[in-house]
Amino acid sequence: MATSSIGIGLIGCGTVGSGVVKLLLEQAELYAQRLGKRLELRRVLVREKDLHYKTEQVPPGILTTDAETFFATPDMAIVVELGGGRGPISQFVRRALAAKKNVVTANKALLAAEGPELFALARQHGVTISFEASCGGGIPCLTALEFGLMANRIDGIYSILNGTCNYILTEMSQQGKSYAAALKEAQEKGYAEADPTLDVSGKDAAAKLAVVASLAFGVQATGDQVWAEGIDKLELTDIKAAAELGYDIKLLAIAERRDSRISLRVHPSFISKDQLLAQVHGSFNALSIYGHATGHTMYYGRGAGMMPTASAVVSDILNVATGMYGVAFRELRIWPDQQPPVQLVPSDELQSRAYLRINAKDQPGVIAQVTSILGEAGISVSALMQHEMAADQFVPVALITHQCRQGSLLAALKKIEALPVINGKPAVIRIVDLPK
Amino acid sequence: MATSSIGIGLIGCGTVGSGVVKLLLEQAELYAQRLGKRLELRRVLVREKDLHYKTEQVPPGILTTDAETFFATPDMAIVVELGGGRGPISQFVRRALAAKKNVVTANKALLAAEGPELFALARQHGVTISFEASCGGGIPCLTALEFGLMANRIDGIYSILNGTCNYILTEMSQQGKSYAAALKEAQEKGYAEADPTLDVSGKDAAAKLAVVASLAFGVQATGDQVWAEGIDKLELTDIKAAAELGYDIKLLAIAERRDSRISLRVHPSFISKDQLLAQVHGSFNALSIYGHATGHTMYYGRGAGMMPTASAVVSDILNVATGMYGVAFRELRIWPDQQPPVQLVPSDELQSRAYLRINAKDQPGVIAQVTSILGEAGISVSALMQHEMAADQFVPVALITHQCRQGSLLAALKKIEALPVINGKPAVIRIVDLPK
Repeated sequence: MATSSIGIGLIGCGTVGSGVVKLLLEQAELYAQRLGKRLELRRVLVREKDLHYKTEQVPPGILTTDAETFFATPDMAIVVELGGGRGPISQFVRRALAAKKNVVTANKALLAAEGPELFALARQHGVTISFEASCGGGIPCLTALEFGLMANRIDGIYSILNGTCNYILTEMSQQGKSYAAALKEAQEKGYAEADPTLDVSGKDAAAKLAVVASLAFGVQATGDQVWAEGIDKLELTDIKAAAELGYDIKLLAIAERRDSRISLRVHPSFISKDQLLAQVHGSFNALSIYGHATGHTMYYGRGAGMMPTASAVVSDILNVATGMYGVAFRELRIWPDQQPPVQLVPSDELQSRAYLRINAKDQPGVIAQVTSILGEAGISVSALMQHEMAADQFVPVALITHQCRQGSLLAALKKIEALPVINGKPAVIRIVDLPK
Repeated sequence: MATSSIGIGLIGCGTVGSGVVKLLLEQAELYAQRLGKRLELRRVLVREKDLHYKTEQVPPGILTTDAETFFATPDMAIVVELGGGRGPISQFVRRALAAKKNVVTANKALLAAEGPELFALARQHGVTISFEASCGGGIPCLTALEFGLMANRIDGIYSILNGTCNYILTEMSQQGKSYAAALKEAQEKGYAEADPTLDVSGKDAAAKLAVVASLAFGVQATGDQVWAEGIDKLELTDIKAAAELGYDIKLLAIAERRDSRISLRVHPSFISKDQLLAQVHGSFNALSIYGHATGHTMYYGRGAGMMPTASAVVSDILNVATGMYGVAFRELRIWPDQQPPVQLVPSDELQSRAYLRINAKDQPGVIAQVTSILGEAGISVSALMQHEMAADQFVPVALITHQCRQGSLLAALKKIEALPVINGKPAVIRIVDLPK
């Protein structure tokens, strides 16, 4: 790239895309000073229906709805893909790579599902894929893994990767709101979609975890292979009960090295209020990364939003433009297509402590039945609290277990649920003990 | 670097150096897998008196006390400088650069004093200087600034860069210990040196701030040009008083963009307990970095210690070994020798709110005299508390000011100190309001 300018093509111009356009136009001088050459937005491809949506800042003449026009644009060294999803977008990415364009993307779904194949394709054509914006928004967490922590064997990642969920959980725990009320507020403030399923189900965090784990551990997992539980079944009573015990609630996306295997999971988690991760409030994201030499490091910032995510995209563009990323992509053997296959821990074998709440008939012997089922499953109880009286004949009883296998726990809970002395489905929330 | 191994020379083998040796030996396979070539430690230069100090792990035959032998070692592409200080070490670094060796260093004092010159020398000889370990220990904060946040104009950095001070302040605020007692404990636990002056005076943090600001803002400042106040005059009574007002105490190293100028300062600071930085306890470090696009991001981890700092050094080695850092060093114009000169804000013009405590004679008109001196200096008072009664006729009075110029504040304090109705030197601690 010895030219005095670097041409950029942009696919998709929604919230993040328009932020990228804004940065490239408004900070053109800053970037030219840093690079010694200019970044030039040469073409923006949008769908017909998006032609007048957030495209006000796009310079006249470079907006198109025609993929042929887009790909025929000369001197376009970098293609930024912000269309999202798979299907046609996957085809665009493949076409860009085959045409020797470096691809910058925020598309976690695409990477989690097709990453190794796309990386191999990029390598075959001598170009790169950068994806800082796909995980943690404006937090340069992938840069940390790719470069700053390179001397480490990564042992664990404990992360808050979905700002919608963190906002809702913060409102529940700090303001005592119900899940429904907190969700409604998040929607009103623009932190949650009208259909919040992808976020609150944990699936968004799962896809991001798959991406970050691909770099940290060489895991080739699709988002669907990550055990994911959402926050939509959480009840305020459990959050209050755990608060009394010194815990706060977070939706954690966790990747851990377990001997030669890696465990991946996303679930609501009680963590000690003393942990720095417990202090990550509102729509912010954070990743606690444990390296064998650095120990605990944490990365915090805005996990979504126009400008933070655009910051990650444009930083990727700059790193491709200097040529530094190209060298790293070629010489550093950490990319998803290059690492030896790593086995995942099956979901039944995931381990944690757990908080359980059952509604039990207030009569002798009930607790004995429950703890006996747990005991048969190899699960021992470390604490038992009957923390408030209900109006009817069932009373809520909370238990805390020692470390147990997820498979054993879920099986035991089914048996407990079937007991005639138990009313409704037991609540279960994992307690996560972060490494020192 | 097309060879199948990369030779490394190490100058200095104390705590961090022995950590580097340990990583290079123990993780040789991991690094070979990541690089596709082996990192080979070819020579270790130590002083005569250090020959048997922490050098047990150095392979036989490669330890030397002779600089000529060191520099005559063939195939040594990278020289790691962990001797510290300036003088002879500066000469070694210059000699290594002139011999076309890439230098990796943790030497903040050297960089803060001679950075631009050394960078220019490296450039002249087609090699690089990497320095992640010079600031924030194991936290990859420079990597974040160099690559992950590259799309941003950096507006402010608020950081805890000295673990000794943070340990002492945590003990004072959480355990109610005096400064002297907390320092003694820090020394017993190995967090503080026998002579703790460099740390507790704020000078260590100032040199680190100069390094991080050179990348973030292009400032060419020596550590001595950074306004630095230490923690050794802090009294527990002030920390307790501020705690009641919702503040926690930290030694903050602050760099802020003020129009076209940059302000640099290190001083004890009251920050709101709600801030994430207030949750950084014990010997940990953290940097809150505000980018114009990302907004607030924070980086947290161990700021010192054998393995965390060695992690930063070896990550630098790996990034030099791939060639990625060489490209960035050549193509990215952010290095201290390349940025246009930036003016510093003179220390008199530094701005902040302030907490003041004076011991005033308990008689009518005294407060009026004090506030009148402040008023004449253009400093208005937002709160005034007479928070406890003393046994003698002087009572401590605490005041909180609105934003004021440091020069005006210090001049007013001299006048107040000279009042006959005031006993002793007024205590002053800045209150730092972090950006949203």
